[in-house]
Amino acid sequence: MQTESATVPTFADVAAAADRIGSRLLRTPVMSSAALDKRADRRVVFKCENLQHGGAFKYRGALNAILPLAMAGNVTAVATHSSGNHGTAVALAAKVCGLDAYVVVPRDSARPKIANIEQAGAELIYCEPGLPAREAALAEVIKKTGAHLVHPFDDARVIAGQGTATLELLAEEPDLDVICTPIGGGGLIGGTALAAKAMAPRCRVIGAEPQMADDAYRSFKTGKRLSVTTPATIADGLRGSIGVLNFALLQSHVDDVVTVSEREIVDGMRIALQDLKLLIEPSSAVAVAALLAGKLGTSGQRVGIIISGGNVDLEQCPFLRGETIK
Amino acid sequence: MQTESATVPTFADVAAAADRIGSRLLRTPVMSSAALDKRADRRVVFKCENLQHGGAFKYRGALNAILPLAMAGNVTAVATHSSGNHGTAVALAAKVCGLDAYVVVPRDSARPKIANIEQAGAELIYCEPGLPAREAALAEVIKKTGAHLVHPFDDARVIAGQGTATLELLAEEPDLDVICTPIGGGGLIGGTALAAKAMAPRCRVIGAEPQMADDAYRSFKTGKRLSVTTPATIADGLRGSIGVLNFALLQSHVDDVVTVSEREIVDGMRIALQDLKLLIEPSSAVAVAALLAGKLGTSGQRVGIIISGGNVDLEQCPFLRGETIK
Repeated sequence: MQTESATVPTFADVAAAADRIGSRLLRTPVMSSAALDKRADRRVVFKCENLQHGGAFKYRGALNAILPLAMAGNVTAVATHSSGNHGTAVALAAKVCGLDAYVVVPRDSARPKIANIEQAGAELIYCEPGLPAREAALAEVIKKTGAHLVHPFDDARVIAGQGTATLELLAEEPDLDVICTPIGGGGLIGGTALAAKAMAPRCRVIGAEPQMADDAYRSFKTGKRLSVTTPATIADGLRGSIGVLNFALLQSHVDDVVTVSEREIVDGMRIALQDLKLLIEPSSAVAVAALLAGKLGTSGQRVGIIISGGNVDLEQCPFLRGETIK
Repeated sequence: MQTESATVPTFADVAAAADRIGSRLLRTPVMSSAALDKRADRRVVFKCENLQHGGAFKYRGALNAILPLAMAGNVTAVATHSSGNHGTAVALAAKVCGLDAYVVVPRDSARPKIANIEQAGAELIYCEPGLPAREAALAEVIKKTGAHLVHPFDDARVIAGQGTATLELLAEEPDLDVICTPIGGGGLIGGTALAAKAMAPRCRVIGAEPQMADDAYRSFKTGKRLSVTTPATIADGLRGSIGVLNFALLQSHVDDVVTVSEREIVDGMRIALQDLKLLIEPSSAVAVAALLAGKLGTSGQRVGIIISGGNVDLEQCPFLRGETIK
């Protein structure tokens, strides 16, 4: 699918995004836990984008794409497909900017995410899981409504916006040895890598993926952009395949990609809850799992992790059940 | 049981505590959620003592009691009884100050709390639930070891230390209409009320209790200090009865006490997790439940809640089960 902003972004785009949207974001806290540091045998800080508007980092990219469109004044609506968080972000950013929003949503998305998109004021269009179905449904919506596409990840404006979280993290914690984010379509890792390599050149940038959705891992290792179809991972935000621009940044700016099992993801979520007292979504737990598996740096190093979101279906998660007391 | 510091504390004691211990505390964040504001139809801010050292506000009071003892140099050990968080706090504060710590723990305390006390370096002594058993076991420990008693709540130094959380909250959010904390033995509500009435005189101070452990509620309403024995509430931190000094402050400085059901407590915990992305313990959820039941202020007002702790047994909580993915 053609993106509107189809050139690989640079650090200048991230810096411009920070200027443009910085004052409209929540300055999310950077948190840590002595218990978790001990467990991981290194110092770990967490940039808590689960506390961002819409409960995920996605608001950064969406706002960076939509705000200039609204200010230019020649667009009345935006559209996207999303497993959830990007949809909410587009809906919120569109509302803030006075535009309509249409969001194509796969039926297997986490229910709270769907509810969030709707509450944020978007019109929902359901589709089957998998990228082809999503893209087909979105193309039809755009044809029908004339809405402007805001792609969830394969868009320079979106990637640049996502990078602003790392600028904030490095402003507070400049001496990181490693920064890690999960990889879905690659918007977050791309923006993160641009920011980190410019602001902290000796800091290694590592992406984390579920073994069950390891397209970026295989792409990184083989040098060929590969995809997955309907991957069976609990990390619902990481079921998409890596985008074109994102793969280019993965090759040029990222030091490594590591993978973790489904069991490790659930344990990571549980340990974040126990030690950090934070609800993080399974997609975010992928990076925590990589940490706990010893795959991020070495003992004694300083690690930064972007907690990508906190929208969890409490009724579906293996250890978060919907029961109430008798 | 006789406390070491058996006079009712004043605001001067809270201010002195802040000077004494302020730099040794974590400055816990003040958090909020647009979703929760909407749900409660008022602006609500949460002082996140679940992120304090030891995972609870209790470190403030323990450190304020123990630091001067250690500096005076005529004490080598401290002792207390605790359902968990105060025990961890005493152990941590004793370790920081170079003293030994003995903690009497009721067998029905949440397991992670017991593990925390042990990891913090205290020697554990188990006893049966209920205040008489706790006090008897503690008296024996003190007789045997010569340790100095740091009472969990009925101690002016402890109460004054707990009040420092509210000083920090009001520094960030000076215009609160209501401040609410849960009530167990009354250390937190006492210190909170001292701080609030001095710094924000028009702010109402409201205590929240489980209906199943409503000793402070009944004491407040009748003007007579009453107690509960082995109350069957999920809020394991609130099973104690209100202390002597604490009751005096409840009468002189607190505007109201409200109660909530067990069902409301669990729902409060769940909603904090969903909206704030924060794990709070059932005792803290009592205040959130009071908010959601419309018992804290009126629509449009500004409410501050002290989140007292985040030490939850994930295996025992009704909606937080210990299952892992297959």
